[in-house]
Amino acid sequence: MTATVEAHLAAHAAESLRELEAFCAIASVSTDPAYKAGIREAAEFVADALRRSGLPTVELIETAGHPGVFAQGPEIAGAPTVLVYGHYDVQPPDPLDKWQTPPFEPTVREDRLYARGVSDDKGPLLIPILVARAYRDCRKDLPVNLKFLIEGEEETGSPHFESMVAANAERFGCDLVISADGAMWRPDLPSVTVAGRGLVALDVILHGAAKDLHSGRHGGSAPNAVRALIGMLATLHDDDGNVLVEGFADDALPPDPAVVKAIQGLGFDTGRYFEEIGAPAPEPMPGGEDLLTRQWLIPTLELNGVTGGYSGHGTKTVIPATASAKITCRLVRGQDPDRVFDSIVAHLERVKPSGYRLDFVDHRPGTSAFSIDPDLPALAIVQDVLQDLLGARPIRVAMGATIPIGSVFEKHLEVGTVFFSFSTSDEDYHAPNEFLRLSNFRLGMTAWVRLLERLGGR
Amino acid sequence: MTATVEAHLAAHAAESLRELEAFCAIASVSTDPAYKAGIREAAEFVADALRRSGLPTVELIETAGHPGVFAQGPEIAGAPTVLVYGHYDVQPPDPLDKWQTPPFEPTVREDRLYARGVSDDKGPLLIPILVARAYRDCRKDLPVNLKFLIEGEEETGSPHFESMVAANAERFGCDLVISADGAMWRPDLPSVTVAGRGLVALDVILHGAAKDLHSGRHGGSAPNAVRALIGMLATLHDDDGNVLVEGFADDALPPDPAVVKAIQGLGFDTGRYFEEIGAPAPEPMPGGEDLLTRQWLIPTLELNGVTGGYSGHGTKTVIPATASAKITCRLVRGQDPDRVFDSIVAHLERVKPSGYRLDFVDHRPGTSAFSIDPDLPALAIVQDVLQDLLGARPIRVAMGATIPIGSVFEKHLEVGTVFFSFSTSDEDYHAPNEFLRLSNFRLGMTAWVRLLERLGGR
Repeated sequence: MTATVEAHLAAHAAESLRELEAFCAIASVSTDPAYKAGIREAAEFVADALRRSGLPTVELIETAGHPGVFAQGPEIAGAPTVLVYGHYDVQPPDPLDKWQTPPFEPTVREDRLYARGVSDDKGPLLIPILVARAYRDCRKDLPVNLKFLIEGEEETGSPHFESMVAANAERFGCDLVISADGAMWRPDLPSVTVAGRGLVALDVILHGAAKDLHSGRHGGSAPNAVRALIGMLATLHDDDGNVLVEGFADDALPPDPAVVKAIQGLGFDTGRYFEEIGAPAPEPMPGGEDLLTRQWLIPTLELNGVTGGYSGHGTKTVIPATASAKITCRLVRGQDPDRVFDSIVAHLERVKPSGYRLDFVDHRPGTSAFSIDPDLPALAIVQDVLQDLLGARPIRVAMGATIPIGSVFEKHLEVGTVFFSFSTSDEDYHAPNEFLRLSNFRLGMTAWVRLLERLGGR
Repeated sequence: MTATVEAHLAAHAAESLRELEAFCAIASVSTDPAYKAGIREAAEFVADALRRSGLPTVELIETAGHPGVFAQGPEIAGAPTVLVYGHYDVQPPDPLDKWQTPPFEPTVREDRLYARGVSDDKGPLLIPILVARAYRDCRKDLPVNLKFLIEGEEETGSPHFESMVAANAERFGCDLVISADGAMWRPDLPSVTVAGRGLVALDVILHGAAKDLHSGRHGGSAPNAVRALIGMLATLHDDDGNVLVEGFADDALPPDPAVVKAIQGLGFDTGRYFEEIGAPAPEPMPGGEDLLTRQWLIPTLELNGVTGGYSGHGTKTVIPATASAKITCRLVRGQDPDRVFDSIVAHLERVKPSGYRLDFVDHRPGTSAFSIDPDLPALAIVQDVLQDLLGARPIRVAMGATIPIGSVFEKHLEVGTVFFSFSTSDEDYHAPNEFLRLSNFRLGMTAWVRLLERLGGR
């Protein structure tokens, strides 16, 4: 039975690719209102794809932001209920000039599909939709009661996701959530993710004079917002990149000993890491355990961008009136996003020099860190299915990134979430030239069939 | 005789305004290659205006950059030769969204003409061209042998100006240069400028990883070019804005005692200054002498702009691969632009953390500071003409800004330069909504007639 569905999917691989290309041609950038039409179009695309996969109930759930797409399959008596999570929104495509082919013109090169959002998360979420369609096309019953919840605000920190889940807890009710989002750690090492960092974000805007001033007339006497903001931001870290903000990490709990142990066993090669990201090797070279601990288990305060004054061609002798920076923090277990936010605001207000006005843009709500119950039976099933397909037992890893959904589902549906995604974390999903390995897109089809079969007890 | 010319100019004020509007409609931005066509058009406009003013010799002088416009009037036997300097290029117009009316659609509001370049320097340089035309129209001989040299690279630091003057020293030869560029210090206080600061400029570009990285996966381990550059730039100044770069001011000479004395007598109102520029009042409020000394007599290192990572709407969780800053320095007497440049490069290379690559964009040649011989007879004549017209004796002031031409003319033509401009330094000439007071445009016509008459010994 499984073999039939798997064979059907293999026979229709070209069609699946065309559907993925059509999905990726939609510019569904959630962080920028200019792309509003693309968001709506992508939500409709997902709803239509689910309908074509034979799910009897498909609907858009409106929120104060972008809509979610909910679908429910036919009732399979006696089978468990599985809710598949994914997101149809994507990161902004800029800097556009760094793309080899345009971000919303999907292009295959060397068995990879290049497009914004293809790896995060359009490819991975399309897999279970196509798997459901294969069962329908083969006139086979699905092994489980299948539900889908595909949101459109993941890349903006899912601001309306929790309220949507809370308001629809009964309809969304299930025995398990499987997230099609959350990349595998490394392409050459099967892994399952059991923990993620939280997130909180803010913008800082500093104002000096009412307008940009001529640096000849005013240089030396007028406030320079770029100079002042830079001085303020430079106090956030020490020379080694440790966060110096008072109260920032006060509530951080010690890391999960299992993950600490995993890090020790991984033999992470830092020289190779810096080669892979194309950065000059630092001196002294940090150790592998230290670097991985910083990636997975230490909270961060990152400057994601800074801007102020003139940045065009040539020179412009202005004293900038305004300068701003974007900050995001990755949080570990125990840290409260609101308290972290407050600690940064208080720090910057304290170090602000006289003669300037300081504003913040609040991108909350933030997200707490998340970890999965290590004894969840579905976790072992996921490891079994991947081991069968890949020949090696997947290791359990933490991730530095944030998937807010885990804690939301735990709180409102009282179920665990396992991550089952076929993107890998080297696929440039927040950078130019995002791609998805098409071998993983095909592998994922087989893996989802086998996972659903195992969860259905077949 | 003077009265006739002055009356003619007054009667043709509307025509003069139309000609200024047409001139300002040309987007002659010299700092950005995208405006190349506007540069050529403005040069042709100036040449045409000079021809219509009856100057028998008018020609474009090509350089490796933008052309200069040279013109020579009819020979007036026995009269001195005066070379008028100005520039037809303008600053970039951005940020465009801050303009009340578009920068290249000149608009009159409340007897001010708003347009990019109207104050710096299109209005002031058009005045002597229109004055020459009035003499021609009235069939009066000019009081002096009049030459014009109007360049197109002032806003980029006049990189080809010196070689142009050196190559044409004989043709440009004169007894005196009068600069139509160089704004009056304050609208309510007649002044003549006797000194200006020099200038040197560079861009700093810092590279970390080969591309922007996801802050979830890489946050804590990957180099963040924005954080590192900010840390480096923050070491350039102390908390009071004093430059900390080793060797930066080693060659600075003590200021001209006459200017120091002028500062002490001015009673500069710092509270009013911060009000005028729309900045929050600093605490403690600096004294007037201190602030003016910083504007006129202390070298600066200004951050004109900084950029890196994401600065669009919302959040983007990237670790920026690249960050850059634009720096210009205002120099005082004695400082060598090359040595200042080298000191900044050496400082930044020394504080660059490991794991990054540092690049510079060299905007040299720079310009040394400049000061006029206080005993130049023309300086007293300028003061006399202004006193007659304005009722008060103009004070002699320094300026923080840079006019590279003074030292060039002194070196290659062996003549002094006096500044005779009818813009004032509050006219937002490097900011949005640049304007020129039309009352000064009209006053300037009368003043130039009287100055030429006095210089001609009439």
